[in-house]
Amino acid sequence: MYQLVIVRHGESLWNQQNRFTGWQDVDLAEKGKLEAKCAGDALKSRNFEFDQVYTSVLKRAIKTLDIILEGIDQQWLQVHKDWRLNERHYGGLQGLDKAETAAKHGEAQVKIWRRSYDTPPPRMEPSDPRHPSHDRRYKNIPMKDIPNGESLKDTAERFMPLWIERIQPDFKLGKKILIVAHGNSLRALIQYLEKMSADDIMQVNVPTGVPIFYELDLSFQVLKKEFLGDPEEIRRAMESVANQGKAKSP
Amino acid sequence: MYQLVIVRHGESLWNQQNRFTGWQDVDLAEKGKLEAKCAGDALKSRNFEFDQVYTSVLKRAIKTLDIILEGIDQQWLQVHKDWRLNERHYGGLQGLDKAETAAKHGEAQVKIWRRSYDTPPPRMEPSDPRHPSHDRRYKNIPMKDIPNGESLKDTAERFMPLWIERIQPDFKLGKKILIVAHGNSLRALIQYLEKMSADDIMQVNVPTGVPIFYELDLSFQVLKKEFLGDPEEIRRAMESVANQGKAKSP
Repeated sequence: MYQLVIVRHGESLWNQQNRFTGWQDVDLAEKGKLEAKCAGDALKSRNFEFDQVYTSVLKRAIKTLDIILEGIDQQWLQVHKDWRLNERHYGGLQGLDKAETAAKHGEAQVKIWRRSYDTPPPRMEPSDPRHPSHDRRYKNIPMKDIPNGESLKDTAERFMPLWIERIQPDFKLGKKILIVAHGNSLRALIQYLEKMSADDIMQVNVPTGVPIFYELDLSFQVLKKEFLGDPEEIRRAMESVANQGKAKSP
Repeated sequence: MYQLVIVRHGESLWNQQNRFTGWQDVDLAEKGKLEAKCAGDALKSRNFEFDQVYTSVLKRAIKTLDIILEGIDQQWLQVHKDWRLNERHYGGLQGLDKAETAAKHGEAQVKIWRRSYDTPPPRMEPSDPRHPSHDRRYKNIPMKDIPNGESLKDTAERFMPLWIERIQPDFKLGKKILIVAHGNSLRALIQYLEKMSADDIMQVNVPTGVPIFYELDLSFQVLKKEFLGDPEEIRRAMESVANQGKAKSP
């Protein structure tokens, strides 16, 4: 039986400003640090011990992870940081707030980008200084694999090689795994684990800073799923994210 | 030409209490966090960019590193945490303060342990609950390699495989490397790089929180060594450590 805990990073500065963030490397807000602290407390109260940790190369996830590791006194764990766990790349929408997006592209189009599983946002031009090809953290990714605007389907497809090539083998070595990542990279994982349709996964709102504990059998079938922490706080967190989904962007 | 920066972690809670720390996993003091912040500032002002980071599995080094990476906005760097960068294991002295040590073992003996390059401290018994064999972070180290009390010579000997097997190959791949570690594991590295005798390295006091920048040629000969930061602050830090050496313990 395999043990996996996933955590979505706490609230970032751009979540608070209601802007499309994607791969923009925005820091945690103070509230996000508090959420991370609570996630660590929830794991500590259940005496979770991990063997390997995965996160993205974006600081809002890394900082959340650092705070969690401090909370459970397991800072010594090896952390693999991988771009495949990054948030969905929001292409030309990155940096825009909801009003700017609606003004530029129209409400109807924005609704399609938000609700569709496989419609990518407008591309970010490779000449854009914010394009990942200009950031040295991505220099080892082949140009053809560097996203410039992803649908959730695209995000799921680039996540899977990490799952198959690194995370599954770690489970088979008996490792207990913690993954701290983003709303949409975690949706990709949840869809895979829970065998959800495109429509179903679009309805899932992953609460920020709430550890989700999975027990998996040797074929990676879900035996058990549990949200960790105070049930009342978790309910509030999930409602908050669902409401953000109406007005705010990942 | 290879580029290396080494940093000794900031002051820990036990440094302040003047106790032998060694492998005891003691947290940074507030002053230590401030020292780490200054180290990050010094690296940032010179626009240092790294490709690979090494630290120990002890939280005072890891926390120092986290603060530095935040300061230089390079949290996304891969960090390899390795027990071979741990502080010298102080065996049966761990946890004792200077007065307790002198009372238990005598001033003359304490002087030998402090000043000798190759005299190990009294052993920590494997049955001691603090012995590394009871800590799961060390479970993959063969029992014969787990220290229970090291001289500086022992520390240097267990550090070298990491240097040869991982760090040197990283340099050969063109990576710029940051190492955040401890007074004695860094002494081992400095002795190797600067080809110092046992007597000479015992006189070296590595200042806490001051980045030391080395340029090395392709045979790892030192071309240049530079302390980074405000010269007046560095002078004070080095004096402070030299004075600690008289009264305090790593």
